Amino acid sequence: MSATPIAATEAEIAAVAWNADGLVPVITQEVGTGRVLMLAWMNEDALRATLAEGRMVYWSRSRQELWRKGDTSGDRQWVRSGAYDCDVDALLFQVEQEGNGACHTGEVSCFFRPFGGGAVPGRV
Amino acid sequence: MSATPIAATEAEIAAVAWNADGLVPVITQEVGTGRVLMLAWMNEDALRATLAEGRMVYWSRSRQELWRKGDTSGDRQWVRSGAYDCDVDALLFQVEQEGNGACHTGEVSCFFRPFGGGAVPGRV
Repeated sequence: MSATPIAATEAEIAAVAWNADGLVPVITQEVGTGRVLMLAWMNEDALRATLAEGRMVYWSRSRQELWRKGDTSGDRQWVRSGAYDCDVDALLFQVEQEGNGACHTGEVSCFFRPFGGGAVPGRV
Repeated sequence: MSATPIAATEAEIAAVAWNADGLVPVITQEVGTGRVLMLAWMNEDALRATLAEGRMVYWSRSRQELWRKGDTSGDRQWVRSGAYDCDVDALLFQVEQEGNGACHTGEVSCFFRPFGGGAVPGRV
């Protein structure tokens, strides 16, 4: 799959309403299927890297470092489009998901347990 | 459109990893189209109300109160399914969107401005 950088303007990046930690929540959706793959976070460096490299780069809150999704797993996410919401405090990216899927559990989407579904709750 | 309550278990609700403000981010997606409509927040009361009433109830961070989506605008969101992610720190609900759409601007989705799209940035 190919990287497609997005030529965002400086004004667009400057408009993002980062939270108190300097982060913004990001929804990642699979092109074609429309499946919501995951929700993660970006700081400004991660957003700039994502737009410039054409692949999803998040900020890992647990590791406190840039997280180039798929560098370890191979499950990279190739950006096809990105958008910001009316409050500019949430982002939506549409991607082609490479490899096995977005989730570290092996599921395609991180949202694989429905409420009322009888799964064992808790972090997996 | 009809309300479809979801019989979530107490264990599922107890498992949610609320942030320091007692909130969790929620992605709302339109059934059928797969369109991502919005990202908003719920506290435990909002989640319980959403599951019990079968329509989306958020926590308004600006007004600091429960926000029964559509009570003012008529643009209610009827729940069809809900899921939590692998870390139990983000939720995804699929809904039937009533009325004109999810966004206060009149757009169907809050994510109507693409990066690089030339729109005027800023909260609208």
